[in-house]
Amino acid sequence: MEIGFIGLGHMGDPMVRNLLKAGKSVRVYDTSAAAIGQAVEQGAAAASSVAELAATADVIITMLPTPAIVRGVIAGPDGVLVHAKAGALVIDCSTSDPRTAVDLEKIGAEHGKTVIDAPVSGGVPGAKAGTLTFMVGGSEPAFEAARPILSAMGKNIVHCGAAGSGQAAKVCNNLLLAVSTIAVSESMCLGVSLGLDPKVLAGIINTSSGRCWVSENYNPYPGVLKEAPASNSFSGGFATDLMIKDLSLALDAAHGTGQPLPMTAISKQLFQMASLQGDGGKDISAIVNMFKNQ
Amino acid sequence: MEIGFIGLGHMGDPMVRNLLKAGKSVRVYDTSAAAIGQAVEQGAAAASSVAELAATADVIITMLPTPAIVRGVIAGPDGVLVHAKAGALVIDCSTSDPRTAVDLEKIGAEHGKTVIDAPVSGGVPGAKAGTLTFMVGGSEPAFEAARPILSAMGKNIVHCGAAGSGQAAKVCNNLLLAVSTIAVSESMCLGVSLGLDPKVLAGIINTSSGRCWVSENYNPYPGVLKEAPASNSFSGGFATDLMIKDLSLALDAAHGTGQPLPMTAISKQLFQMASLQGDGGKDISAIVNMFKNQ
Amino acid sequence: MEIGFIGLGHMGDPMVRNLLKAGKSVRVYDTSAAAIGQAVEQGAAAASSVAELAATADVIITMLPTPAIVRGVIAGPDGVLVHAKAGALVIDCSTSDPRTAVDLEKIGAEHGKTVIDAPVSGGVPGAKAGTLTFMVGGSEPAFEAARPILSAMGKNIVHCGAAGSGQAAKVCNNLLLAVSTIAVSESMCLGVSLGLDPKVLAGIINTSSGRCWVSENYNPYPGVLKEAPASNSFSGGFATDLMIKDLSLALDAAHGTGQPLPMTAISKQLFQMASLQGDGGKDISAIVNMFKNQ
Amino acid sequence: MEIGFIGLGHMGDPMVRNLLKAGKSVRVYDTSAAAIGQAVEQGAAAASSVAELAATADVIITMLPTPAIVRGVIAGPDGVLVHAKAGALVIDCSTSDPRTAVDLEKIGAEHGKTVIDAPVSGGVPGAKAGTLTFMVGGSEPAFEAARPILSAMGKNIVHCGAAGSGQAAKVCNNLLLAVSTIAVSESMCLGVSLGLDPKVLAGIINTSSGRCWVSENYNPYPGVLKEAPASNSFSGGFATDLMIKDLSLALDAAHGTGQPLPMTAISKQLFQMASLQGDGGKDISAIVNMFKNQ
Repeated sequence: MEIGFIGLGHMGDPMVRNLLKAGKSVRVYDTSAAAIGQAVEQGAAAASSVAELAATADVIITMLPTPAIVRGVIAGPDGVLVHAKAGALVIDCSTSDPRTAVDLEKIGAEHGKTVIDAPVSGGVPGAKAGTLTFMVGGSEPAFEAARPILSAMGKNIVHCGAAGSGQAAKVCNNLLLAVSTIAVSESMCLGVSLGLDPKVLAGIINTSSGRCWVSENYNPYPGVLKEAPASNSFSGGFATDLMIKDLSLALDAAHGTGQPLPMTAISKQLFQMASLQGDGGKDISAIVNMFKNQ
Repeated sequence: MEIGFIGLGHMGDPMVRNLLKAGKSVRVYDTSAAAIGQAVEQGAAAASSVAELAATADVIITMLPTPAIVRGVIAGPDGVLVHAKAGALVIDCSTSDPRTAVDLEKIGAEHGKTVIDAPVSGGVPGAKAGTLTFMVGGSEPAFEAARPILSAMGKNIVHCGAAGSGQAAKVCNNLLLAVSTIAVSESMCLGVSLGLDPKVLAGIINTSSGRCWVSENYNPYPGVLKEAPASNSFSGGFATDLMIKDLSLALDAAHGTGQPLPMTAISKQLFQMASLQGDGGKDISAIVNMFKNQ
Repeated sequence: MEIGFIGLGHMGDPMVRNLLKAGKSVRVYDTSAAAIGQAVEQGAAAASSVAELAATADVIITMLPTPAIVRGVIAGPDGVLVHAKAGALVIDCSTSDPRTAVDLEKIGAEHGKTVIDAPVSGGVPGAKAGTLTFMVGGSEPAFEAARPILSAMGKNIVHCGAAGSGQAAKVCNNLLLAVSTIAVSESMCLGVSLGLDPKVLAGIINTSSGRCWVSENYNPYPGVLKEAPASNSFSGGFATDLMIKDLSLALDAAHGTGQPLPMTAISKQLFQMASLQGDGGKDISAIVNMFKNQ
Repeated sequence: MEIGFIGLGHMGDPMVRNLLKAGKSVRVYDTSAAAIGQAVEQGAAAASSVAELAATADVIITMLPTPAIVRGVIAGPDGVLVHAKAGALVIDCSTSDPRTAVDLEKIGAEHGKTVIDAPVSGGVPGAKAGTLTFMVGGSEPAFEAARPILSAMGKNIVHCGAAGSGQAAKVCNNLLLAVSTIAVSESMCLGVSLGLDPKVLAGIINTSSGRCWVSENYNPYPGVLKEAPASNSFSGGFATDLMIKDLSLALDAAHGTGQPLPMTAISKQLFQMASLQGDGGKDISAIVNMFKNQ
């Protein structure tokens, strides 16, 4: 079985390495020849175009930056669906939006191919360690077919429902991450302004009803968690500008269903304000600077 | 040692019962004679006024509804500090505000008495079960003096720092609880509007970076957690109007230190909108009705 | 000179009538045969397709509901630009978005045709009375060519700048209208809750620094202005769901330029909450119901 | 008739000058001896305490910074009401809150004196020019008694209703001013980011439904209005920290009546964020810096 992998960025490159480590046969394509070269050094075969890659692969994985690019690469006139073999399985691991995922599954079916959405959480560290969570949207048989391949790159492979459900679950989770990051920033800064020691406050929160993943693992107040981006000049982690993009996907999906999301909307705007002040490339926890007496 | 206890409401009454169960000698006062009668049936002695209670008690505990009432009962012209014995310890368990707590400690010291703030989390169930968390603000010796008494009513007794720190920690935690409740409501409603099963979505969130105490223990989407208020007509739990009061304390404290709290502020307003629509007496998770397609 | 007019809805129909009254020769097209029939009764000629209309017109005006439809009708494979005569002028009066307008002008130029954006304000009453404001984006000569035609339908023809500027100006104005509507609702409801007479309060605001177009002409508090939608069951006027659409255009445009818009974002969400409660078809002033003690 | 005037700050000092110019007999008091000295140079008599001033005056005007100070000066143990003559009229021109005004009127009546609230709009320029607007809360006869005196300091004397109504009207107006300032900032910055000329955009807004007092007279985008604070380094005008105080009064009043004010609440937080970044002393239009690409 040959796996074609399109998109060798910060996430795609380590994902390919893990597929190779698991003994899979992988052919890769990227718009950067250097990125292809790196993967070839690790044992991958190279393709010179999406079309060439699609023509021979049994499973095609895409890991691309925006829904528009995903749509072009998979369903475009010279894209995956036009050139792939009958019965091929396409796994889109990009963070896209539910509507795009639903559309691609339908277009795929018209071409006699299966497209599922399988966005990830865990970031670059999870991609390197092979511990990503995959949130999968698609039919049960398609999920079962994808599972052994995804297992080579992650440890938590969740079937969320029909096509689009993986993307839906991801945006629902990420909006919570965004809101939590800001809310913990507010709470910590208020406490410090009232004279509390930030580590003591974090300890109280983490044993109380305000506890969340962010307060426990990613506290945005500098110095509380030694390994967190907040204690390391807000480097590494999840860039503010990428979170703005993810929040847009959530808000666009909500617009489509008429779903109000006031806290999510204001979160996006606060991150946008931080980005305007020059923190777009920093980790999302840098939002604390909007609230912290410097 | 005699403990005086003032304020026998939904919280104070079970707290007194636990003190009695632990073998403490307790004298009680409340503006309701019926409430006093109930406590006397359990073995408490009665006082006919704050002054009478204060005159004989070694430790005085207050559990009262608002900062203004706390201030009057403790520091008013016929209050605890005027009548208590030299060296008495006053433990205010009410949810008040940091500034009131700091003031009372200072006024207490002028009277030769010690006042500490020790607000609780855990609600009525925690008060009944004797499993409250106490967040204590005051000196180290005062904390140590209070600890064995508080241990009869709770299981987690945390020293947060100097006077006012207990109230500060409480408002910092509760604002996170408020924001989380709304954010989880948004996330769950978005997911359902996109076709996800609410239990599946909750499961994904609870193993991802959106996880929080609310998503795990208090999911506001009806049917996800059988025991949660959301699955029981939003009854029991933490009333929306009380949360509005707690958020006011947080916002007032923040106003005093010049601390911006945008997410907290909008949370308060959303709860106020829910209250205006008639949900003020329902559990905070009823906020989900503002976002859910009925 | 022949004018082709595409889109005979609530706005397009009276605009065509005013062109005819001014003695212009007009050929019309709509997907509804009944709408075409009505215009023909008024003196317009009918076309059976966009292509047929485009083939003979010197100036083509479009008045369509969404940017996607505008793009299809003007730049689609069987659209205006493919079929229009060399040198034709296309005036898009739809509320679209700046990026679409910029794209269409560029595609138009590639076809040797001029496309300008000219969205309107004034609503159905302005369309009927011929008193619309046109906000025009495009070159100076194109603006001058369009002006006499637009003058038959409106009385305020403003050149906002290059292509896209008309759409930009419109979204900038409409976000202010949205925020003002909610803010005046808050102010009026607060005043009434404090015991003020709503007409007295409106009078004070209208001579003070809180004055705005909404407080003067469109007060959302029922009974203050006899002719306003708020005093007529929130009927007529500007539907909440259309405002949600316009706010999306503003927020999407802002996303593209990295512009934070917190008040605009929360406004959209509040209107979305009102729509969820069943007020989507009512005038925007119905938002007052979210704040008013019923 | 002798007028006693307490509070000779930026507003009180020019108000006293206008009373003197109108030929009134004025006795003044302030905690600053220098301020008293200045007023005496203009022709005022001096008092050495509130009590002394109250003892001889027929009408006492207060212009003080906070509700707590107002309450102390008027109703405190050595305050105006204790020492004033029977039948004296007390006019509080401070920006206070409706509840304080209602309380003071009631306490005044118990002392046989009349207290009315008469906060102003127009700022320091209006105080100097004698063109202030007075928003008056109190009985009709009290309003009529105050009118000739207020007319010496302002040109628009409005009776808003019973005691507290003046303060209520003022907070209702000022919250609109706050929201408008931020909304116009968003609109202008979005327009500029989309390529519009700021003066052209302001012109369009000012003839459209987004028009407001701020867009016309106080445009926050630098360079649009030559005389506005925004074009003069945000100096002069209405300081951000004072607006934060006024918004607190509005939000506290709303809390008391259970009135939701989401846009007002978020406005306060945005100004608080600006203040945290060092703009608290600048005019409110400096909020534009939170949205403007520098």
